[in-house]
Amino acid sequence: MNDLSHDPICALATANGTGAIAVIRVSGTGAKALVSKAFSKNLQALPRHTVHLGWMRSASGERLDEVLATLFDNGKSFTGEESVELACHGSPYIQQLLLQRLVEVGCRLAEPGEFTKRAFLNGRLDLSQAEAVADLIAAQSKQAHQVALQQLRGRFSSELQQLREQLINFAALIELELDFAEEDVEFADRSSLKQLVASVLQMVRRLAASFELGNAIKQGVPVAIVGAPNTGKSTLLNQLLGEERAIVSNIAGTTRDVIEEVLNIEGIQFRLIDTAGIRQTTETIEALGIERSQQKIEQAKIVLCLADSGDASNLQETMEWVQSLKTLHPDKNILLTLNKADLTTAPNLNPQEEVLQISALTGNGISALKDKLVKLVLGDFSIQDETIVSNARHHAALELTAAALDRAQAGLDGQTTADFIAMDIREAMRQLGHITGQIDVDTDILGTIFSKFCIGK
Amino acid sequence: MNDLSHDPICALATANGTGAIAVIRVSGTGAKALVSKAFSKNLQALPRHTVHLGWMRSASGERLDEVLATLFDNGKSFTGEESVELACHGSPYIQQLLLQRLVEVGCRLAEPGEFTKRAFLNGRLDLSQAEAVADLIAAQSKQAHQVALQQLRGRFSSELQQLREQLINFAALIELELDFAEEDVEFADRSSLKQLVASVLQMVRRLAASFELGNAIKQGVPVAIVGAPNTGKSTLLNQLLGEERAIVSNIAGTTRDVIEEVLNIEGIQFRLIDTAGIRQTTETIEALGIERSQQKIEQAKIVLCLADSGDASNLQETMEWVQSLKTLHPDKNILLTLNKADLTTAPNLNPQEEVLQISALTGNGISALKDKLVKLVLGDFSIQDETIVSNARHHAALELTAAALDRAQAGLDGQTTADFIAMDIREAMRQLGHITGQIDVDTDILGTIFSKFCIGK
Repeated sequence: MNDLSHDPICALATANGTGAIAVIRVSGTGAKALVSKAFSKNLQALPRHTVHLGWMRSASGERLDEVLATLFDNGKSFTGEESVELACHGSPYIQQLLLQRLVEVGCRLAEPGEFTKRAFLNGRLDLSQAEAVADLIAAQSKQAHQVALQQLRGRFSSELQQLREQLINFAALIELELDFAEEDVEFADRSSLKQLVASVLQMVRRLAASFELGNAIKQGVPVAIVGAPNTGKSTLLNQLLGEERAIVSNIAGTTRDVIEEVLNIEGIQFRLIDTAGIRQTTETIEALGIERSQQKIEQAKIVLCLADSGDASNLQETMEWVQSLKTLHPDKNILLTLNKADLTTAPNLNPQEEVLQISALTGNGISALKDKLVKLVLGDFSIQDETIVSNARHHAALELTAAALDRAQAGLDGQTTADFIAMDIREAMRQLGHITGQIDVDTDILGTIFSKFCIGK
Repeated sequence: MNDLSHDPICALATANGTGAIAVIRVSGTGAKALVSKAFSKNLQALPRHTVHLGWMRSASGERLDEVLATLFDNGKSFTGEESVELACHGSPYIQQLLLQRLVEVGCRLAEPGEFTKRAFLNGRLDLSQAEAVADLIAAQSKQAHQVALQQLRGRFSSELQQLREQLINFAALIELELDFAEEDVEFADRSSLKQLVASVLQMVRRLAASFELGNAIKQGVPVAIVGAPNTGKSTLLNQLLGEERAIVSNIAGTTRDVIEEVLNIEGIQFRLIDTAGIRQTTETIEALGIERSQQKIEQAKIVLCLADSGDASNLQETMEWVQSLKTLHPDKNILLTLNKADLTTAPNLNPQEEVLQISALTGNGISALKDKLVKLVLGDFSIQDETIVSNARHHAALELTAAALDRAQAGLDGQTTADFIAMDIREAMRQLGHITGQIDVDTDILGTIFSKFCIGK
């Protein structure tokens, strides 16, 4: 495989800043010998997967820090290369000092993602697994964590492998027909071929379709709460956030856009857009606050249109607004939400209209609203039982696979000659292979993939 | 020793935030058995100082993360207890998930400094060494790092031990005299006793005196640049910072007060006070900018009074100002610094007055100025060869030791009876013992010491 080198690289593997300890990773040919030049012990002959206490020393023999060195042999490490991990005292000053010393004895500072890239190039992970490492580290919710973990464990890879194997069988039959093309013989039973393509295509389409969910899980689902003043938007916001907020802020390092509040329901992250506006209630008296709502709706995937169920004219206006929004944004989920259900009897509504009735004040109906939000995101997918695609690159490759299979299917229907069908099947296989990196992937693409990683990974 | 318990504790040991990996520490009786409850392997029978790849699992068997577990046996770990270090994927979400799981299986979240406190209570480090761990992690300059490292390695502790042994000999002689007090016998040769006390006292005073340097190294040395407008303060500042600034900002995580610039000379950190004022040059035309300078001088340890050597009246005024400052602040170093030495011949000066001549513009004399700054901080101490005390608690104990020895010395001179002298010697020994924790230290004091540590240390 291209782009493969084993020169020793080093980087801080733990988070930036001050901690009790920090870990510096060294990986590459001769890593143990190289660290030994600056270490108080010769690590070369020591057994793998053992840890050793010693001092890192400067060129003049000065003690720099007392560290724990963990040893990994070639083929038995994350990167698949000989590696040493140095756990030092966790000050930025010491981290810097030791990295400088490692460079002095012959290491190169690693590029972002270079350790994981090597793990891929050395066959420790396929490409989709390597990408899952970055997703795993970025995951901020249970479901994002689950999706990344399943991808890292190779469920997606093995499904793709099965699909490719089916296509290989298909290709073998088609290519056989090609060999005898002169004789105008059809070896392959076209109806069973059609069935095979249809079944593979269905699975590819299902995977491609899961990307909407996967992406929503990974990025969080943007939700807008809109409605006229005094319909209870601020109360609903507080009701939704409730205890949740404490939990979110408990997770150290969670960064949030200031104008967003994050809501975690069943492990899915919902990002409530421009809630600052709601809290500050800077809205003008304009009936529905439509102008102000416009921007929020643009950014949202789910829109909660709040109406006061006791106010007939507001109710009527909001219902009309919901209708026009649905026409305008067929790709968004627009939910008519009737607030103050505790104060009034249920109003007369168009029975075709799906309506949520809540009381933001008492909390009635809020758990049904949350269930509805989760259901809108999940659709008919099951994160537990199905592979969810969360990577845009994978999604694009799956779409190209589906397109190629579409062409093959049309070819089979239209009595196209075998050579064209074979070309489409090969293209589908190539696209699937790109996802896991089984098919050679461009160095540029690899570069792009791994440059998004953090340094030290 | 008091306050000793070995219940299993856990905490994140690496810096907060997102990294490629993070390390969670578990320490206490049964740590391996406890982690095994949530780990895919039974770690209990595995040999110490080995690492094991496996999965952390939830109570229901769900995989939480793939981690590397490093094992430490009782007596063979940082804390001196059975310990496990878990290197997991470095997301805050996963860190939180695994800590929650560890609490579920019976760990307690550690308090700040609790690991190091246990290392002390279990006799792995004495108290001054334990305190050095925190200093080492906080160190941001070479000399601060050196001082902490030497303390961690026990040089200070062994010096204190020697002093205590001398006092023990002394006490033995005095106590002997006490036993025969009725008979009015003087067993101890008072002149050699006097010599002994004098020698110990001298060493204690030297150590106590080093605290000014140690503290300066640890906190950085505040320096103010003052002078009339147009004497070149801003040019001097730029000249001093020069390349230095790039180096400082290279050290990731270095935090600086916005109105301070940090200058590193020979591994000592100088903090240039209120340089924002200099850069913004918001000074009024008032002759020496004295009012504005007042505050800076209050905060500074070293004051550079800049005069324009070509401007006779400014020179005269500045010299007078320096004189009055010296009277006003005998504890500060006030340095008359003549700028624009390149443009003029040396002016006539009081030969008693120490003067630095520089050209902020050309850089002439700047290296002499830097040498002078270092010399002012170091005094006649040698960081390489001498123990430098950098901890206020140690300094206070040394001062109390010196006071007790002073009393003993006066007692020996004044023919005080042996029992009073013995009391003072015992007090001196007790104070020295407090530093290393040889003498029982109050639980409250221990609490105060370790609560300043970060969590996970």
